[in-house]
Amino acid sequence: MGKTVAEKVFSAHSGTDAYAGDFVEAEVDYVMANDITGAPAIEAFNQLGMEPIREKIVLIPDHFVPAKDIASAIQARKLRDFVWKYGIENYFEVGRGGVCHQVMMEQGFAAPGRLIAGADSHTCTYGALGAISVGIGSTEAGVIFATGRMWFRVPQSMRFQVDGEPDPYVEGKDIILRVISEIGVEGARYRSMEFYGSTISLLDVAERMTIANMTTEAGAKCAYVHVDKKTHEYLRGRVRGTYREVSADSDAEYVSDIHIDATELEPQVALPGSPDNVRPVSEVDDHIDQAYIGSCTNGRLEDIRKAAEILRGRKVHPSVRLIVVPSSQRVYEDAIREGLAEIIVEAGGFFSGPTCGACLGGYMGVLGPGEVCISSTNRNFLGRMGDRDSKVYLANPSVVAASAVAGRIVKPEEVLAR
Amino acid sequence: MGKTVAEKVFSAHSGTDAYAGDFVEAEVDYVMANDITGAPAIEAFNQLGMEPIREKIVLIPDHFVPAKDIASAIQARKLRDFVWKYGIENYFEVGRGGVCHQVMMEQGFAAPGRLIAGADSHTCTYGALGAISVGIGSTEAGVIFATGRMWFRVPQSMRFQVDGEPDPYVEGKDIILRVISEIGVEGARYRSMEFYGSTISLLDVAERMTIANMTTEAGAKCAYVHVDKKTHEYLRGRVRGTYREVSADSDAEYVSDIHIDATELEPQVALPGSPDNVRPVSEVDDHIDQAYIGSCTNGRLEDIRKAAEILRGRKVHPSVRLIVVPSSQRVYEDAIREGLAEIIVEAGGFFSGPTCGACLGGYMGVLGPGEVCISSTNRNFLGRMGDRDSKVYLANPSVVAASAVAGRIVKPEEVLAR
Repeated sequence: MGKTVAEKVFSAHSGTDAYAGDFVEAEVDYVMANDITGAPAIEAFNQLGMEPIREKIVLIPDHFVPAKDIASAIQARKLRDFVWKYGIENYFEVGRGGVCHQVMMEQGFAAPGRLIAGADSHTCTYGALGAISVGIGSTEAGVIFATGRMWFRVPQSMRFQVDGEPDPYVEGKDIILRVISEIGVEGARYRSMEFYGSTISLLDVAERMTIANMTTEAGAKCAYVHVDKKTHEYLRGRVRGTYREVSADSDAEYVSDIHIDATELEPQVALPGSPDNVRPVSEVDDHIDQAYIGSCTNGRLEDIRKAAEILRGRKVHPSVRLIVVPSSQRVYEDAIREGLAEIIVEAGGFFSGPTCGACLGGYMGVLGPGEVCISSTNRNFLGRMGDRDSKVYLANPSVVAASAVAGRIVKPEEVLAR
Repeated sequence: MGKTVAEKVFSAHSGTDAYAGDFVEAEVDYVMANDITGAPAIEAFNQLGMEPIREKIVLIPDHFVPAKDIASAIQARKLRDFVWKYGIENYFEVGRGGVCHQVMMEQGFAAPGRLIAGADSHTCTYGALGAISVGIGSTEAGVIFATGRMWFRVPQSMRFQVDGEPDPYVEGKDIILRVISEIGVEGARYRSMEFYGSTISLLDVAERMTIANMTTEAGAKCAYVHVDKKTHEYLRGRVRGTYREVSADSDAEYVSDIHIDATELEPQVALPGSPDNVRPVSEVDDHIDQAYIGSCTNGRLEDIRKAAEILRGRKVHPSVRLIVVPSSQRVYEDAIREGLAEIIVEAGGFFSGPTCGACLGGYMGVLGPGEVCISSTNRNFLGRMGDRDSKVYLANPSVVAASAVAGRIVKPEEVLAR
């Protein structure tokens, strides 16, 4: 019987002939933890009394660094102490890393056919390069530090076919919001989501990352985006070691096969409360207090370019704070070199160094009661970015930038026409 | 009898012939508050049931914005509500302002002969342009919002004469640290500190600001730096309205007249605990975990230039986090345009948008227990930048940058020689 990508990757990494539903013990290629999940992972590891498998461990402080308070400083220090004690080389200090998933991608840890475990919910992101990557708990990460292995139940897979050339300002974010809207926040629970089609082929890796990243919001175990020329271009000169590309068999079994016509889409907005509460932007009208562009979902150079295109020569609305947070030091540096940071600062935007920041209500733009934010991030749960009486709309970076100028949620064309 | 600058300014603003020790009720030119002090000032104002004197009020959120938590967001929102209710024009939103004292200077509120009250302890800063500016409490600020006036006891004055061309890497910071070391942290309590001499003439306004700023650390009520060509160059095209330059009479009475020979100085470092615990850098040796360049004391373009000069082509020590926080959006933009931000990011430094940040243990680099930081800021009291068991050394930006590269406190020449 044919296999899905997940079935193939779990088979190859466990030395078994595994299908959806089977339990396997698999060898992971890398295990990643950040400052929040790393500290308890290290505690779990310490209880085992074993040596770490150094080359598989990747540690990336990003959530609350540069330290937002004393507790954050203590937490980040636990990572450093572990790194120094064991000589962990894959450690990315403040000023030399960024948001963990972005760093995993741009530093060449992610690659087709790899199995990567990460102690962060948005680890699915590396599916953008054809890796099977899964979010795990801290204790599980601590055990992988020592063993390099973990048990998995091989997930069922869903197939998504996205075709057609989308309108300008319809981005990867809009496709995944539409998908989540269609299947709901539990629609892919413990499943692998595979993406194919002519629209996907048109998207750059940055937008594919947005799609894979937000499969988490449908409950997915992992994601896979069809590997093509763009994948290999991205990997060239950056991937660490060798990898073995995997593709699904034509007779693989999927629990569903969903088709999306991208030509029908306009930019999508998730209304406050849930990422599956989605409407076309033309049906949304609310004022905003804050506009936020950043995170592992939409804080890449391509996202900042899109925002800058709209902000160039315009001004942020007087009653709005625009906060732009690149997802890594590399993105930050490129945004400076390309003149994007300058455009955003000239427009009256605040341009931060890389951190998870306000995406999870950490710092760098936390919302007070009654405040409304439009954000390029991944979650708009009650209180996600601050007070439980604040509201978060999710959208693509172009819509966020346009709304920052307008002072209310608008489609980019409305601002560009002015 | 001749008058000091403080005596003249308080006389002119109170319509009296005032000398040190006299109580006057004076008309202030501007009253400034930030996000921390503004909220209680507005509460005090509201109790009066009066209309605000709009044109005198300047509100600049900077300490905990972009909001570091929900409480900070609520605090900043109180400022905005007041601004919107009364149509306050001198308001500098996130992304359009920066650290309050820097904004007061670069936006032309500070000028020679002016009397400015600010609800922040480092309001003395505007003495760099020959203004008499005093730190006040929030309640006092709230009353000035309504009346434009406040009572003062006219301070006694101390005269400082600094002469000689200092060594390279001896900056304004080193002069003021030396002064504080000489007179102690209570040495200028409720006094005005006037600065003169050939060294002062050589310093640009940025370094004069560092000197005036840190007079607070000697307990000063206000500061005054001799007004000259550089003052007027700085004011040109930026100062709001007219102003009347004031200088001290030759027979003015000073409580002390202290001479400093700048040619004898090497870069100074304040050891942890107090800004008057000062040693020449060559006598200091400690490892560091963090290096911080920013704040109203030393976060200006000139400071970032000095840091970049040392960091160009070098790398931050692997075990050190270098955090650079420009003191305003304008400084940030200029630092990008000049390529300084790029140099710092290439070196492995974190480059933030403007905020008071970690200077006061706010966020963006708070220290954990046992951590050691060298900082270009103004205070190194127990726990100032985080945990009470952390340590802060104060130094000029060149020393901070050099130490970031070395991993321990060094003089710049040591790093440049490598």
